[in-house]
Formats: sequence, structure tokens, C-alpha cells
Amino acid sequence: MTHELESIEDYRDLFDKFDTFLYDCDGVIWHGDNVIPGVADFLAYQRKQGKKLIFVTNNATKAREGFKAKFDKLGLEAHIEEIFGSAYASVAYLKYVLDFPKDKKVYVIGEDGLEKELESEGIAYCGGTDSKDNVFVPLMDFSSIQSDPDVGAVMAGFDMHINYKKIAKAHRYLQENKGCHFILTNDDTTFPHSDGKLYPGSGAISAPLRYAVKNKPIVVGKPNQPMLDCILKTHDIDRERTLMIGDRLDTDIAFGKNGGIKTLLVLTGVQKREDYQAKDAEVVPDYVIESLGDLSALTDSNKRPLNGTDGSKEAKRRID
Amino acid sequence: MTHELESIEDYRDLFDKFDTFLYDCDGVIWHGDNVIPGVADFLAYQRKQGKKLIFVTNNATKAREGFKAKFDKLGLEAHIEEIFGSAYASVAYLKYVLDFPKDKKVYVIGEDGLEKELESEGIAYCGGTDSKDNVFVPLMDFSSIQSDPDVGAVMAGFDMHINYKKIAKAHRYLQENKGCHFILTNDDTTFPHSDGKLYPGSGAISAPLRYAVKNKPIVVGKPNQPMLDCILKTHDIDRERTLMIGDRLDTDIAFGKNGGIKTLLVLTGVQKREDYQAKDAEVVPDYVIESLGDLSALTDSNKRPLNGTDGSKEAKRRID
Repeated sequence: MTHELESIEDYRDLFDKFDTFLYDCDGVIWHGDNVIPGVADFLAYQRKQGKKLIFVTNNATKAREGFKAKFDKLGLEAHIEEIFGSAYASVAYLKYVLDFPKDKKVYVIGEDGLEKELESEGIAYCGGTDSKDNVFVPLMDFSSIQSDPDVGAVMAGFDMHINYKKIAKAHRYLQENKGCHFILTNDDTTFPHSDGKLYPGSGAISAPLRYAVKNKPIVVGKPNQPMLDCILKTHDIDRERTLMIGDRLDTDIAFGKNGGIKTLLVLTGVQKREDYQAKDAEVVPDYVIESLGDLSALTDSNKRPLNGTDGSKEAKRRID
Repeated sequence: MTHELESIEDYRDLFDKFDTFLYDCDGVIWHGDNVIPGVADFLAYQRKQGKKLIFVTNNATKAREGFKAKFDKLGLEAHIEEIFGSAYASVAYLKYVLDFPKDKKVYVIGEDGLEKELESEGIAYCGGTDSKDNVFVPLMDFSSIQSDPDVGAVMAGFDMHINYKKIAKAHRYLQENKGCHFILTNDDTTFPHSDGKLYPGSGAISAPLRYAVKNKPIVVGKPNQPMLDCILKTHDIDRERTLMIGDRLDTDIAFGKNGGIKTLLVLTGVQKREDYQAKDAEVVPDYVIESLGDLSALTDSNKRPLNGTDGSKEAKRRID
């Protein structure tokens, strides 16, 4: 049963129930380069009240430093240890959980954020942004797609330079290299861009590989649990007093549910009210609110209308 | 129950039972640019005996003229009307079965063979080999991915220039253009190359799109039936006296089974004996033979050993 937050009393009850707030970013805190109105005030208020904030994003194109720079640019406080991108979580999972051998390297399908996180953990890699693999090979010319027994893992995230050479090389390593790990930062079908359209996401990028090989990948990002394992390893958190906030039922809300954590859906992103109200909805949030910005009413309830703030309406207009 | 063909009597029985022989090409007739030993003799013998030969290939990179040129180059007789590539079959299906409107165009993910078949049927198209769409777009730059209401179908085949721009454009058309058809030439997971390795196939190329959109594609190529519908429309064939010959259980043999046609598996391509003998084998052929070339024993049984010819052994060595 979903509780729709509608009054300042609802907001206060929610706020008091939890100590730790796990945040999805895009569609919740910002749209592209615009902070959703009211959100900055609310985040600052939370910090003042001693709450713990953790940012959990499936976006694998940036390293943690890159996300930090984005928060900085938008005038939002954030610290490296509060940021869990699926690139970092994937690398941490490979190194600490799978105990990746030091003499092996990772074949990367992804952008430089993934490479930076591999570097920061001292793991050798190939592919990725290497210009030799960011090319179109001529039709039926497979001569540049060769074996490499040193590849011990294929790690795939979002990659706008996806091409046949990368797919075919990764395919060979997964076929030929015994015990080669197959790790996806996440498998999101699509993601919303600030132009209001959905574009194919990381899961679409790795789909050719998942289709062609029999190896089952480990998926790190939401709604899967390796991401949460990673957070719990480094933060002292009481699940009972932790809230996951997101704009997607199939990633954010399912992530909380899978991890035994309460969930709040915001309607400033991918999902609309009818999605969780649908009879066949597979994932239903514990709470729902028009916009995270609405909670800024807590910072000074006299200054703002309590429901349907200008902020949330503005945000909705932009995403619809 | 599979009948293993082992003697000249077995070969003769099989030959006499059927009037029409549907052939997969790669792994059956040739490996890359090498005709499998004995096959040329057998095909010529079939023609002399008045049998009907039809070549059915999922390879969508070539138009029928291109396949004809390959037969010519290899010294094998073939005629345009005997050749059914999945590119031609997809275009024919769009035009004649789906009655594609004359004022709409097709967005192509594929090579020039698909474009040539569209041209030959007078259907407008975009994408494909157009240099504007064969580029890498910068990270998070979606400015070149725009709407186009004139696109009435997305047609995807094998494309070694697959890239994010093509995937994202096709995704937009399928999302935004009402009634936009979604046609795959075929959905093969992999294909064997003459270097003896498997490479990601057409199904891997279209996997991102199938993953990101909800629209269910029409798949034309084997093992699906639109390809057979296409053959039956243009050839007078008695299914009872037709044999499908191929090297793959999941495409060729399943194609025959789905269409109520008897099947012969050759072991010169993708599949090995243990594949169809496996307890959990989903598709089992009616007949099996080491190599199609073994049937050349029919042309002059005195000249050749009857089983395990040099030809089949040589072919096996190359593919293993």
C-alpha cells in the first residue's frame, strides 16, 4: 500500500522515520544540468539535521570525482565517500568480492569514468576509450579481432562508442578465456535526457553480448544487490531507518525492495502516477511525492505552498 | 528419431524421396570462400536429375545479385529466382504482406545488400550505409538524433557499422511513429567465420533495440516462417517432397520443423553430433550426414569411399 505524501505532517513523519537517505540523482535531484526547484534547500536542511545522504546512481560514464564535480557545479554539497556510481561499485565488486588476480586485465566497454575507477583501484584494462577499438571494421574483416588470454573480465557500461569490434572482442574473451568474469555496471533499458526523450541505456549497450554468449553476467547497479553490498561495506547503516528515493520503479524502487529498505517514488522523472497504480504493477513504492522539492516545505513551512509547488509543476512540465 | 545416413543405399533413398532441396549455404555448401569438397559435384548431379534447388540464407549483407556473384565465383550454378536471402525476404514481406505505404520510408540498420533489395522493390530508405549515420556521436550529445515522421519501418540486419546513433534513431522512430513496423532480417545469435571462430550475428546487432523498446519485431529469417511464406509464394513446392538442409539446429533444422518439412543436418558447420544427440536437445533433425559432399558418392559410387570422405574430414578440421 503506497502512502501519498500530501501535507507538511506527512513530510515531517517521513523525515523523522529515517536517518539515512539513499538518492538516485537524475530525475530526482536534477534534470540534466538543472537542479529541480526546492531540492537544494531540502538537501542542505537534511545535512543540518544530521541526516546521512548517499547518492546511488547507475550512471557509469562518470567516476566519483566526475559526479562530485557535477554536484559542485550545481552548488550542491556532496563528498566522494557519499557517492556510489555503478562504475565504482563494479570495480570494487571485481576487486574485493571476486578477488580479481593482479596479473589479469579488464576489457572495457564503456566511457572514461569506468577507466578512471579501474585506475584508482590499480586494475589494468584495455578497450574502452582506446582509439584502436573505437573504429568501424570493414564488412567481414575480422583480422583485428584477436585472442588475448590476459583478459580476465569483461566489464560493460554505457558506451556511446559501442561498435562491432568491441562487441566481437568481448565475445571472444568470454568464449575463449576460462573463468572470464562478465560484469555489467547496470542493465537499464533506457534513460531520460533533458530533452524529455528516452534514450537506449547501458542494458541496451550490453544486449548484443548478452544475446551472443551463454555466460550470465553479474549486474552490479540498481535494482541488483552488489551495489547495496558495496554501500553497506563502507557505511554504518540501519536498514530499518534507511529510505531509498528514486524516479524509476524498475531500478530505484525495486533496489530498495530487494534490499529490505523503504522506498519513496518521485514523479519528476521517468514514472507517472498511473505506473505504480496500475493493477499489474510489479513494484510499488512505500511512499510517493510529486517532487523531492516539495519536502523543502519542511525548511520553512510559512514560505511555500505545501503541495503542487511551482517547483514540482515546473519540473513536470519539462519532463512530460 | 534421427536417421544417420551411412551407406550409398541410404543416400539413394534420401535422394529419391525428395524433389525440392532447400539449402543453407555457409557451413553446408561452402566455408567462406571454399566450396566444401564433393558439394559442387552433387549440386550439378541434382540439376541433371531434375531436382529443384533453393538457397535459403539468413545472411542479410548481400542482395540476391551478390549471392549469385558468389556462386558464380565459386563455379556453382545458381539463378536469382532460386536465391532467398533474408534481406530480399524482409523487403518482400514489408511490401507484399504488410502493404507498406508508398509515401513512407524504411530506416535501415544493415549493409548495402539490404539497401539494394529495398531499391529493387522501389522502397525509399535512410540510415544504412549513409555516412551521416556511420559515425560516433560525442558522449551525451543527442542533438543529431531527431524525429522523422516519414519513417514507417525500422529494418535491422547484420551491420558491422552498428553504432549508438543508429540504435538511438531507430529507438526514437519505434517509440514516436505510430504503427512503425519493426522487422528483423533474422535473429541469429552468432555465425561461423572461415577462421573457425563464432562472431556475434544479426540478432546481436538488433539486441539493443529489442531490449530498449517494447515493440515486438517480426523476424523474417530462419527459423521463422515469413521466409518460407516467401518461397512458397513464388515456387510450386510440395512440402511432403521437400528437404531442408542445414548446419544449425536452432535456425535451419527448426525452420524445416516449423514449416512441416523434413530436415537433414550436416556436421560441417556449427553443430556437432553431440548437439542433436543431447538429452535436452530441443530440435532434432530427421536425417544427419557428415558432409553434404558425401552425397557426391551418388554421382559415381566407384570413385569415392562411401563414408568419412577426405572432403568431410578436411571440412571438419577447418571448422573445429
